[in-house]
Amino acid sequence: MQLYHHPMSANSRFIRLLLGEYGVEYDLIHQNPWDREAEFMKLNPAGTLPVLVSESGAAICGIYAICEYIDETRGTMMRERRLMPDYPLDRAEVRRLIDWFCVRLDQDATKTLVRERVFKLDMPRTNGGGAPDSAAMRAARGNVKQHMRYLNWLAGSRNCLSGKSLTAADIAAAASISVLDYMGEVPWADSPQAAEWYQRVKSRPAFRPILEDRIRALTPVSHYADLDF
Amino acid sequence: MQLYHHPMSANSRFIRLLLGEYGVEYDLIHQNPWDREAEFMKLNPAGTLPVLVSESGAAICGIYAICEYIDETRGTMMRERRLMPDYPLDRAEVRRLIDWFCVRLDQDATKTLVRERVFKLDMPRTNGGGAPDSAAMRAARGNVKQHMRYLNWLAGSRNCLSGKSLTAADIAAAASISVLDYMGEVPWADSPQAAEWYQRVKSRPAFRPILEDRIRALTPVSHYADLDF
Repeated sequence: MQLYHHPMSANSRFIRLLLGEYGVEYDLIHQNPWDREAEFMKLNPAGTLPVLVSESGAAICGIYAICEYIDETRGTMMRERRLMPDYPLDRAEVRRLIDWFCVRLDQDATKTLVRERVFKLDMPRTNGGGAPDSAAMRAARGNVKQHMRYLNWLAGSRNCLSGKSLTAADIAAAASISVLDYMGEVPWADSPQAAEWYQRVKSRPAFRPILEDRIRALTPVSHYADLDF
Repeated sequence: MQLYHHPMSANSRFIRLLLGEYGVEYDLIHQNPWDREAEFMKLNPAGTLPVLVSESGAAICGIYAICEYIDETRGTMMRERRLMPDYPLDRAEVRRLIDWFCVRLDQDATKTLVRERVFKLDMPRTNGGGAPDSAAMRAARGNVKQHMRYLNWLAGSRNCLSGKSLTAADIAAAASISVLDYMGEVPWADSPQAAEWYQRVKSRPAFRPILEDRIRALTPVSHYADLDF
């Protein structure tokens, strides 16, 4: 299988982590999300990341389709290592949280901060490159604070985000947080329970490649790959 | 079960149609999406529609979680009337299209047009009510045209949107289109194949309550409930 991704795409990281947790082998293909190349648009008319190309060559587009596909073709054979719970209502809670972190947090904050601080440095001016929009960044940072309050509450009231054991909800949340953390955008001091939860999740072997991610335009904050932080 | 909905919420209509196709009995509870009442926010911290309250009283939030829950608890027992295909890759295509219509079309156009033309008439000024933003409406209308081109292409190249038979993808698309059509925002003359497809879907018995929807602020275009149009 092949995964079209960008190292600073939170939703691409979510799928890399899922595949990593299940020990699936695949090739990573770097795709700039602002390049709407005809070849890539043929795979995914939405032009968004991630896209997983299955063994048969079919493109699976977006986290909703990919996450369920991985569960159906890999997760269901993983017994207690499956990242989806057994009961429909428990799965509904995992899916609510995946949506919360992959769609809402992304729209409220991550997407904006990545675009303004990272992508704009690489994007041609004709595609939206140029100076960062400081008003947009300020609004996004306010939203990060609100999201961290909710994450801190979740992490403090449950062992893992959707209940007792690790699920795809933790993976989705940690993927988003890892992108914000790379940029030093997480107010950890105000979120001790979220910090304790994130430390646990980022210590998992599947997280290693994520912590090794480096992009030319921006070096990560010093604690980014530190497992004791 | 109870469904918190608004008649002009495309994603609420999607779930009403799914439940209708499967003959599930439930109560409808009207919820204004701009009222962030404490009671409703307890059910869904995202404050968005739809929310399905299960038989056990648990809240299932958002179309991703609800659509999969209905499939798992109802659809899988429906044999050839199931609205999800049997094979994982076929299901991936259905989910891509659900995401396309419920998230992307909604963000690109439907949400804006409903907010500007309908919700703003009912919303208090302190909550964003007031005069419609004509620039936002113009941009949304441009996006409707693009989406209709894609829908027309899908409807022309496949019998149903995701393949040979009717799936949740058709239901999701028709739910969104029905909201735009209510407002007279669909350029049908440019989309003959989409029109033929929509006429087929809206003739289904499950669609009847949707075609009977009326809101105080805006009467529908004259052809809205016309099955021969």
